Order: sequence, then structure tokens, then C-alpha cells
Amino acid sequence: MSFITVAPDSDFPIQNLPYGIFSTPDNSERRPGVAIGEYILDLSVVKHLFDGPALRGRQDVFEQSTLNAFMGLGRAAWSEARETLQRILSDSEPVLRDNADLRSRALVSQKTATMHIPASIGDYTDFYSSKNHAYNVGCMFRDPATALNPNWTCLPVGYHGRSSSVVVSGTPMRRPNGQTRPDDSKPPSVTPCRLFDFELEMAFFVGPATQLGEPIPMERAEDHIFGMVLMNDWSARDIQKWEYVPLGPFTAKNLGTTISPWVVTMDALKPFAIPNMQQDPAPLPYLRHEDPYNFDITLDVSLMADGLSKPAPIAKSNFKYMYWTMKQQLVHHTLTGCNVNPGDLLGSGTISGETSDSYGSMLELCWKGTKVVELGNGVTRKFLQDGDEVIFHGFCEGNGYRVGFGTCTGKVLPAHPL
Amino acid sequence: MSFITVAPDSDFPIQNLPYGIFSTPDNSERRPGVAIGEYILDLSVVKHLFDGPALRGRQDVFEQSTLNAFMGLGRAAWSEARETLQRILSDSEPVLRDNADLRSRALVSQKTATMHIPASIGDYTDFYSSKNHAYNVGCMFRDPATALNPNWTCLPVGYHGRSSSVVVSGTPMRRPNGQTRPDDSKPPSVTPCRLFDFELEMAFFVGPATQLGEPIPMERAEDHIFGMVLMNDWSARDIQKWEYVPLGPFTAKNLGTTISPWVVTMDALKPFAIPNMQQDPAPLPYLRHEDPYNFDITLDVSLMADGLSKPAPIAKSNFKYMYWTMKQQLVHHTLTGCNVNPGDLLGSGTISGETSDSYGSMLELCWKGTKVVELGNGVTRKFLQDGDEVIFHGFCEGNGYRVGFGTCTGKVLPAHPL
Ligand SMILES: [Ca+2]
Ligand SMILES: [Ca+2]
Ligand SMILES: [Mg+2]
Ligand SMILES: [Mg+2]
Ligand code: NI
Repeated sequence: MSFITVAPDSDFPIQNLPYGIFSTPDNSERRPGVAIGEYILDLSVVKHLFDGPALRGRQDVFEQSTLNAFMGLGRAAWSEARETLQRILSDSEPVLRDNADLRSRALVSQKTATMHIPASIGDYTDFYSSKNHAYNVGCMFRDPATALNPNWTCLPVGYHGRSSSVVVSGTPMRRPNGQTRPDDSKPPSVTPCRLFDFELEMAFFVGPATQLGEPIPMERAEDHIFGMVLMNDWSARDIQKWEYVPLGPFTAKNLGTTISPWVVTMDALKPFAIPNMQQDPAPLPYLRHEDPYNFDITLDVSLMADGLSKPAPIAKSNFKYMYWTMKQQLVHHTLTGCNVNPGDLLGSGTISGETSDSYGSMLELCWKGTKVVELGNGVTRKFLQDGDEVIFHGFCEGNGYRVGFGTCTGKVLPAHPL
Repeated sequence: MSFITVAPDSDFPIQNLPYGIFSTPDNSERRPGVAIGEYILDLSVVKHLFDGPALRGRQDVFEQSTLNAFMGLGRAAWSEARETLQRILSDSEPVLRDNADLRSRALVSQKTATMHIPASIGDYTDFYSSKNHAYNVGCMFRDPATALNPNWTCLPVGYHGRSSSVVVSGTPMRRPNGQTRPDDSKPPSVTPCRLFDFELEMAFFVGPATQLGEPIPMERAEDHIFGMVLMNDWSARDIQKWEYVPLGPFTAKNLGTTISPWVVTMDALKPFAIPNMQQDPAPLPYLRHEDPYNFDITLDVSLMADGLSKPAPIAKSNFKYMYWTMKQQLVHHTLTGCNVNPGDLLGSGTISGETSDSYGSMLELCWKGTKVVELGNGVTRKFLQDGDEVIFHGFCEGNGYRVGFGTCTGKVLPAHPL
């Protein structure tokens, strides 16, 4: 289909074409690229080929150091870019295939490239939209009868997060120091986090900006959703427990959040849309939509640790376990007139499946420390230890191809000396 | 002292020299300026006069559309800029005083100028650091014995807010629509906010950036605090009540936050430093500092409403009622290694005094709706009505001069049609 050979199990066939920001040893300039098989198509080199009505006056978006400007152009431009990419990469189109000079300048091996944060993130919001996860947490900290708070099934619960510390996959993550109070009969103290955790999430990037005071109605929500990434919302459970009443998680979450470098567009995900989760009670009218906007995305987590020869799979989940859709999240977020900007990042919340091997956090996998997670080779874990590397992978299974997200990884560094 | 006449009750004498971003009818370019009496000194016009060691290679910061770059330069540059400004504006220095052409280009009447947001705000955090306010809210929603949560006296409680909707004084603020559930026996519904409120706050802008994983220790906190503004953290009490458990306020706060346009530097506030509030229990070592970093800043709130001939004073408070200092807030915020950037905004939380005429929100002034606030002329309020204009003013009283913040205003617009 493409003149570039793509392995059948590659995350990046011509059906995918995710966008990222990269640099190379010989050109340290950050620039937009598209993953295709083992290569990156350097958009700054082929920008002149984007000559359709929406993009011919805006080819400059392909030579910027972030994707914000491209995200801000909106769906007509995104679709046109995808059509152009599928054409110029196809095996029947000579423009790139038969131009050895252009090809050698435009195609970069992913191995030699460094990936960067795909967008400048003005605001980052994290939701809490997987019912299994919310239920599990509720069971651990309350009980099954009152596991879900009354508001949970009425609105997509979420909170504003810290955007400065969102980093790209591969960035090491320091174990945070923090104030905790494990024993209520003693005063709190400051120590390295004892219950350091990952949260298996996905997130979407916002497209065109809105004006303050103007909510996004459901029928226009899709116009503002550019594409998705994997996300690890690193979490300090012991810090959170002590600080979070009444204003929510603060320093327990601001230490860092890791996203995968390739933004998979909603156009690429469309074939994997599945019916939305049944919602009971029926959501209020502003949150209702019938069109499927849930997605069948296989997610897995593995952990590389001292004493292992290869990463140990520890959980298998799926984006389809989301109760609230991304459209519902965005509409609720802006109901008050809150404005959004291109590059804003909205996280799903931890995505847990129904069975104990499908939970998206160590907190759930070790059930609050009451059981161990076996990594093989006699190595076990409850929460994360220094040197552990957390690896997320996600993909949609097509007919003979995959639309994948690559990986989202991060290795835990020891805490900063106190 | 300056060759420019400054009225004794002006907020902007030569002792102040706050920075802002402005444009004029004849020059729509946003540029940095300094308030002096009724004028703005256009820094883009006089940037060549900043020729000291810290600034002569960075005069470009005075022709940018935000103050971020200047904020990022750090204390040596800030002090040098202040010395230069006090010299070139003094009545003994001819460079500006005796150069009619330069003067006419450099001095702009504040009346003709439009003020803009002073910085591009990457992240906005709001604290909850006034003990009286936290106690009042605790009394209303719990009881006096358990009014303060156990963590409140151990750490500066705060949450990440929405930076996209931080706007400059004068921007009208739409009453938000939101999901509320006033009656637990009925399902929630979406309506215009019924309990729309202001919060009297101040906020500081962060200076130089830090690296992810590197906390700011107490002894360097001051290096990262550029200056302060007034802030109105508009709040939808009924929306907050329904949504905030367990992850904190979300849409109840993201509808908008208003700040005053002039950033008063810490150098200008230094003479008004007063002893920090006594803290009991003694804070943990990482939060301890002995040097005074509390400030005597008189704050007042007035409300302009239909039926009034002039704004009615409704509260008089003071920044000195802060329990946690800005240094403590910043140190706690970054304890985990959370990185900061120039232009990050950290809010104080509602600043309430000890008496019922010094409360910083309608929630407290009307004590949760149990009493009315008299505006005169027979006009009363509990929460804000459409058309109401909230006006904050703040200043430090010097010996024969004031270091003031100007005003922070916003008028309530009717909710967006549902
Ligand atoms: Ca999360
Ligand atoms: Ca507040
Ligand atoms: Mg995070
Ligand atoms: Mg606000
Ligand atoms: Ni409208």
C-alpha cells in the first residue's frame, strides 16, 4: 500500500500516520514528522506538497517546533493533510517514491531521531472516567456499597493538572519527596514517596481554540478533538492521601506526567469506534450523544526491573472501559464557558478493566498493598521501586494491520536528597 | 522625587513602578510599560537606557508582548531595571526630563491605553492560605470544632487551576452554566449558577524556571518570586458543592479568574514586610523561614449594582491575614520536583480578616445565604446578580505615599443561553 515496507505488526502503517515532533543528530531543530513503518516523514521537507485548499496557505505549520498551529487549523485541514500523506506515501504515487533526493531528505530512521513533546501544553486536565477504576478505589477507601460517589455517574469527574511537568516518553521520573502522615497519631513528615505508582491512561489533544464564555456544544465537540496519546499519570499515593481533602490531588500528581510522542489522529481511530458504554442514569441532555465515540484500543503495561531479563507484562486493559466519552469530557469541561486552546491535553483517568489482571495501577494490582504482583524470576512488587521502568503500549487491531501508539515509558529515579 | 507629578493618593509613585502590558489606539502592538502617576512609561521606547550589566544584552525583553522573558531573567536584572527606572524618572536626571521628543514618545496617558494580561500563564495554582477563610468555610460546611482539616496547619493546601481563563481586569465575566444538585432527593440539573461569587485574592508571578525533579529550597524561594497582583477567583458555589468530591473544584472555578494589570514587584513591597503569622504547630523544616515575608497590604472590595449611584464598599481585608507565606507556598509546590516557569501564577486563596466586615467572599459576607449584605439605597445582595461589578483595590500605605495595585474589576454578564 505504501512504497515503504511496513511490517504487519508495526504500529505505524499507512492507515495510521500519527504526528510527532522530532530532531536528529545532524539537525537539532525540532520539527513535525509522521511515523510510517520504521521511518519518520519529515514534514518540514515535504511541506510544499500540502497544496490543497485548506493547507496551501498554511504550510508554515509544518516547520514549527510544536504541533499547536496545525492542531489549531481544524478538521478540514487535518483531513486534507491525511489525504495528502496517504497519497504521497502510496506505492502508486511517484512524487516521493521516484525522487531519490527528496526521499533521502524526507525520510528519517526512527532509530536515529529524538522525539520531543508534541505540543506546548497550555492546560492539562485529568478525568476519572473508568468506572472499574473509580469503583476499585472506592472499594479500597470506602466500601462496595458507596464505592462510587453520587456525582460520578452524573458528570465526568475531573481536575485541573500541572502542565509544566508533562514530559515525553523516555524521560526519567524522579521519585517525589512529599509530606505524608501514615500514622494519624503522629505528626506528618517529609520522606521520599513510599507508594509511588503509575496510572495507565490515554489523553487527547484539543484542536481549535474557543472564546471564554462560549461552551462547546455536543454537536461541535468532535471539531475540537485532534488525536490521542498514551499517558502515564505518575501518582504518589501516600502524599495524595494526606493532602487531597478538600481541594483534590496537588503535589501527589504535579511531579510529572508522561505521554507517548506520536499523536494518533481521530481519523485514524475512526475504524475502531465501538458503541459507547451504556450509561445509567441517562446523562443530562447536554452530555447526550448517540454516535459511537468509544474506541477499541488494546492497552498493556509491563515493568522492567532489576533481576528480570525482559519486561514483565503486568496488566492488559482497553480504552473501551471508559464510561464517559472524550466528547462528553470536553463538553462538560466547557459548559461553564471555560475556553480551550490548541495543545490542551485532557486525560482519561486510569483505565481499568473488569478482571484483576486488567487494572491500570499498582494500587489496584496489589490491592492497596494486600497482595504482591509477580514479575517472574522470583521478583515481586507492590508499588514502584527505584530503577523500575514502566512501559505502556497501545494499539487497535485492524484487518491485517495495526494502528498503534508506540510506547510510553519512564524509569523511576531515586528521590532528590532531602 | 520624579519629574512627573504624582498625586499623594496615587497608587503609582516612583516608589512603586509596577510592570504591565499595554497597547494604545495609535499602536496596537502589545508592549511592556511601567505605571508612574497617571502615565505609562513605554519600555519599548526607552529600552536602550537599560544599559547595566544584567540588562544591556537583554533589552529585547522590553519589546515583547508579555513580561515572561523579563520575569525569567531573575533578581539581579529586576533590581537593575528598578534602579534604572528610578534614575531616569527622577527629577534630577535629565535624560528623559529634558528630552521633549523622547518624553513625548515614551510617556503615554493611562487613560488612552488598553491593558492586557501581563504574562502568558503556563500554569496557575490557587492556594487556600487564609486561616480565617478556611475556618469560616469549615464552620459553614462542618462545625467550629472540625472547621480546619488536619492537613491545613501542616501544609499550604492548594490545587491546580485553569490558566486559559485567567483574564485581565475589566474583562466581563459570564455567569456560568453548570450541573448542580441542590436537592439530594432529586436528580441534578443544568442551570445558570445560582450562587455566583467572587474571591478576594492576591497572586504572585514566578520568575526564573526550574528543572523537573529539582525542588526549590526555602533559601532560594525569593529568587523565583517576581511580583504580585490582585486576583478575583470567580467561584460557582453550587456547582462546586456537587462536583468537588473527591478531586476538588473543577468547572466551579474554570469559568474565569481576573487579575489586575500591574505587577507590583517584591522590591517595591519590601518596605511593607511584616512578621509572618505565628504558625502552630511549627512547620516541618522544609517550610521554615524566619525572615518576614508577610506584607501589610490593605485590600477592599466594593460592588457596583443597579440602583446605586456609586460602588458600595462591602469588605475591607488585608494580605497580612495569610497564614502561609508565598515562599512556603512555592517551596511546598515544588517539593516533589514539580518545575516552574516564568509567568506561572500562584494565588493566595481568599483573604478574610477576623471580623464579619473583612470577609473576602459573598459566601462569608452573607454567611451561606443566612443574612443579606446591605449596599445602601435599599439594595441588598446575598450572591452576585447579573450586571453587578466587583471592584478590588489594594495598596500599601507608606510615609506620604502609597504603593498600590490599582483595581481589579469585572462585571457579571448573564449566563449563555442553554
Ligand atoms: Ca489520573
Ligand atoms: Ca480561591
Ligand atoms: Mg500527573
Ligand atoms: Mg478562578
Ligand atoms: Ni454564544
